[in-house]
Amino acid sequence: MTHRKFKVTFQPTGRTVHVEAGTRLIDAAAAAGFTLDAPCGGSGTCGKCKVRVHGAHCPPSESEIRLLGADAIAHGHRLACDTQVTAALVVDIPERSLLDNRAQILTGDSQGDLTLNPRIQKHFLSLAPAQREAAASDLELLVQTFKPLTPRLSALQALPGCLRKNNGQITAVTVGNDLIGIEGGDTRSALYGVAFDIGTTTLVGTLIRLSDGTELAVAARMNPQTSFGDDVVTRILKCRADAHGLAALQDAVIGAIRALLTELGATAGIDLHKVYEVVFAGNTTMQEILLGIDPSALGELPFQPAFRETVTGRAVELGLALHPEAQFTVFPQVGGFVGGDTVAGILATRMDHFGETVLLVDIGTNGEIVLFHQGQLTATSVAAGPAFEGARIVNGMRGAAGAIEKFTFDGDMHWSVIGGSRPVGLCGTGLIDLTAELLRTGLLDPTGRILPVEEVPAQTPQSLRKRLVTDGAETHFLMATADETASGKPLLLYQRDIRELQLANGAIRAGINILLRQAGVEPEQLGQVLLAGAFGNYIRRHNAKRIGMFPPIPTERIQFVGNAASFGAKRLLLAESERMRAAELGRKVRHIDLSLDPEFQMEFGGAMLFPESGE
Amino acid sequence: MTHRKFKVTFQPTGRTVHVEAGTRLIDAAAAAGFTLDAPCGGSGTCGKCKVRVHGAHCPPSESEIRLLGADAIAHGHRLACDTQVTAALVVDIPERSLLDNRAQILTGDSQGDLTLNPRIQKHFLSLAPAQREAAASDLELLVQTFKPLTPRLSALQALPGCLRKNNGQITAVTVGNDLIGIEGGDTRSALYGVAFDIGTTTLVGTLIRLSDGTELAVAARMNPQTSFGDDVVTRILKCRADAHGLAALQDAVIGAIRALLTELGATAGIDLHKVYEVVFAGNTTMQEILLGIDPSALGELPFQPAFRETVTGRAVELGLALHPEAQFTVFPQVGGFVGGDTVAGILATRMDHFGETVLLVDIGTNGEIVLFHQGQLTATSVAAGPAFEGARIVNGMRGAAGAIEKFTFDGDMHWSVIGGSRPVGLCGTGLIDLTAELLRTGLLDPTGRILPVEEVPAQTPQSLRKRLVTDGAETHFLMATADETASGKPLLLYQRDIRELQLANGAIRAGINILLRQAGVEPEQLGQVLLAGAFGNYIRRHNAKRIGMFPPIPTERIQFVGNAASFGAKRLLLAESERMRAAELGRKVRHIDLSLDPEFQMEFGGAMLFPESGE
Repeated sequence: MTHRKFKVTFQPTGRTVHVEAGTRLIDAAAAAGFTLDAPCGGSGTCGKCKVRVHGAHCPPSESEIRLLGADAIAHGHRLACDTQVTAALVVDIPERSLLDNRAQILTGDSQGDLTLNPRIQKHFLSLAPAQREAAASDLELLVQTFKPLTPRLSALQALPGCLRKNNGQITAVTVGNDLIGIEGGDTRSALYGVAFDIGTTTLVGTLIRLSDGTELAVAARMNPQTSFGDDVVTRILKCRADAHGLAALQDAVIGAIRALLTELGATAGIDLHKVYEVVFAGNTTMQEILLGIDPSALGELPFQPAFRETVTGRAVELGLALHPEAQFTVFPQVGGFVGGDTVAGILATRMDHFGETVLLVDIGTNGEIVLFHQGQLTATSVAAGPAFEGARIVNGMRGAAGAIEKFTFDGDMHWSVIGGSRPVGLCGTGLIDLTAELLRTGLLDPTGRILPVEEVPAQTPQSLRKRLVTDGAETHFLMATADETASGKPLLLYQRDIRELQLANGAIRAGINILLRQAGVEPEQLGQVLLAGAFGNYIRRHNAKRIGMFPPIPTERIQFVGNAASFGAKRLLLAESERMRAAELGRKVRHIDLSLDPEFQMEFGGAMLFPESGE
Repeated sequence: MTHRKFKVTFQPTGRTVHVEAGTRLIDAAAAAGFTLDAPCGGSGTCGKCKVRVHGAHCPPSESEIRLLGADAIAHGHRLACDTQVTAALVVDIPERSLLDNRAQILTGDSQGDLTLNPRIQKHFLSLAPAQREAAASDLELLVQTFKPLTPRLSALQALPGCLRKNNGQITAVTVGNDLIGIEGGDTRSALYGVAFDIGTTTLVGTLIRLSDGTELAVAARMNPQTSFGDDVVTRILKCRADAHGLAALQDAVIGAIRALLTELGATAGIDLHKVYEVVFAGNTTMQEILLGIDPSALGELPFQPAFRETVTGRAVELGLALHPEAQFTVFPQVGGFVGGDTVAGILATRMDHFGETVLLVDIGTNGEIVLFHQGQLTATSVAAGPAFEGARIVNGMRGAAGAIEKFTFDGDMHWSVIGGSRPVGLCGTGLIDLTAELLRTGLLDPTGRILPVEEVPAQTPQSLRKRLVTDGAETHFLMATADETASGKPLLLYQRDIRELQLANGAIRAGINILLRQAGVEPEQLGQVLLAGAFGNYIRRHNAKRIGMFPPIPTERIQFVGNAASFGAKRLLLAESERMRAAELGRKVRHIDLSLDPEFQMEFGGAMLFPESGE
């Protein structure tokens, strides 16, 4: 639980993250956007997450010695799931260690079809003295040599000095026909942008070199607005109730974005004055608050957003100190509850280009669900709440060091703790695993009730039965004894924790059901279910199916697509054509508003129940 | 010399100025842009500058009683040249009291042909609840009801709240297809702009209501850059020599502009947040420094300006706190030494639409001279220096209270002091008058030498001869004795003061001569000479001709056109068509650079000599 951080650089892309000491390499890789193949769930048994490590690191585990052999270990080969970061490292990720699904949809596919034609362009000009003297003004010299341009003031201010100090060798920075910067010499490769995913709970920024699309650094932090309330509704209410509410919420998120920019710049060694564009994708409430637009109208009928089109402006208007003429872009949005992150997710996955029916589920505090069927995109969102992020769970915590992130029952109970230490709490994936296993072993019934020991089926092993703790009319489950935990206190899963999970899980499933029913799609028609979001990528798919999060479809049709909102923001940052596609998507996605839909309330009630049986 | 100021409002236009106590009404009117007819030179003898005064004022003079009669005085009639401001006043100016020339060219002509089609527009919209609910977003509601618009962030921020608080009654503020503001209710008449003349020595701002072109207030102050040097060359050198020079000069002028804006807003009772555009006209150096552009290149061959096209941007980029999206516009310029003020002067006077050959002379620290002949506009500028503004003259001062602004010799010598007090110093018009009279009476020879008493012609009156003061090899002229002055010390005109006048006067005349010669125009072909600039409008034309400032043409062909740069800036502020005309003028005026022209040096040498004889 130390806060010391180390830099980890992944090859061959050079992408970099800073992680806390003790973080497993597989988690560091995930933070950098690489989902490694780990069919064993990261338990150190399958050996598929093999990487090669350069730099000082911790001694090999027994699993590593057994699976890799001493020779390979001597050459730096390690299992990413069994190696912790204890120093700055450079890590080679072999192509075969990447999870295929992800590689196909995000890394492989997207790296392949990324269009490079950013809105911000740099042009190197070499202006001979004779040309310079013949021009009627410095600006005319530039315009005659290059193309007609309207100068922004700061570019015009830089022009005379730059031209003379660099003997006519200058780089012009343009957006369309606007001249936004003049720099001395050839600075074409120093052209950067940042793509942001503005989540209700988590903010992720990716620093990208716009000249070649290289991702240079990724950084994430909590959205500090969570201190004002866990979900978008409490934040809308804050803006409605408090005259300074909007300003407080905007200041909070802008402050965190500033800190992320500083971290990104430091990690990649990039001067932030060379960042010319930032792109933001978030849900409608997050985007409106980010822009300082009062989201009060999103809290009353007809839940009208202020805008749906792409919004652009100058980064300085948001209080971001980048290049003085740096642009910001906020994603187009579909409606009051289907925002820019959904548009970014569609842009990222290209789901509307698939030859089959596809469902995209982005699991966060808000769950966004998009169906592509017979050429039509339909989207909705549900309030999943922050249970998957560990909030509102008595012993819940985010997926950080000390969190039990995995449970398996095989007669006895096993867990896996992030960072390998003693458990501190339970994160979302652990909660799903535990719930699924409790259902399988009959300790939990489909209504979500933890059974008292006398009602538990006879065949349930004694080792599990003895973990049931009676508390008046309720029963809780002992996850870890006082001897096993970091705090010396036992860790319990309470009956009310299961209720929180049912709310989150039921909301997502009810949303999926309604989208499918309205489109007349049977679950078996779903060619693929794309699972997006930082949390979504760590879910054990069969366990998610067991608790009924998804309809009963073959597990292999569920694909992980990583942080789709971030990747969509990156696409837009890198190409004008993607910006146009995003605008088009914002207009053509059909929006289903479930907030007051009686059908949804019915469906939600049903979906809160766990399936009677399953894998 | 008190600094107490009073507000004077002129009817019927409602234009307002603040002037120091003791200022004559004729001077207050001039500060407000009204040149009153005063063929007697404001000596209280002709009675033509009659106005009607409301409010407390000083007792009538003997001249007023004699010329107007007690009855008229009881009804508030007064002579503007003989009435001082001692309290806040409202003054009616009868049409017949305005100087005809000026009335024709600036007030009459221009008020008549002023086009009203400002770049900033306000549109009132009344959006019914049904329309509001049917729209997919607030912005789409606006766009569908009105027209496609790209919102600036601040407008988008205001939209949701304004729409709901005002029940759909809002005013949209636009620039082209950009939405720059949203205001509650119908605010169409609250649309203001400010036109600035950025002189080397003097800054003048005029606050204008853009919906009807009304001038609401005028304010002027010294350009504080004068503390860094009197003329543009010293300021260019300051930027070249000192790394902080440009910033210091820009800060100085921006600070004064801010103060002028505050004064204009207070005078007219206008909230500066309702000011949407400011337009600046100045010479090339002043415009570049205003914009924070290093003018160093104007100090070396080929004297290249940074730009020639119109420059626009956001007022906040210049540090001006107006409407958050307020625009600034800086006039297009012709070349390194013929700037935006010259373009504004041509725009103001419409000299290029005259059916005859016209010369425009704008006398300031820089003298700008434009010739229109056979469809071609040719312009140049000369460094007149600040002598006409009283600087570099031993007992010189600006045309403020205490300045001797007029001399007449009629056997004895008479003077007129601004404010009617004892003399403190000599201003530019007084210097020209005195020099002309000294030439006429033979006390000064054409080389500019004040003659020793023994060389003075026998017919020169003794009353004047006795004013000659011998100082070694030089002779000076006693303007006022110690008994007559405010300080109790005598006021002398020194031989070196005449030399300063010769430099300023010779520069202007040499510039005129070269323009005429290059165009093959004889002086008698000049249909009109338009005299512009705050100082130019107070010159006694026959005296200016006597000292050779203008070629020998009939006096009635010399027309006063007021502050042409200010008026041109107003034109541009009020109509898009004028903005386009200005841009076209910037391109089509032919620029003659005299700075290194050997012909100019020759001509200058000759023009320093006064004419042998004249009126």
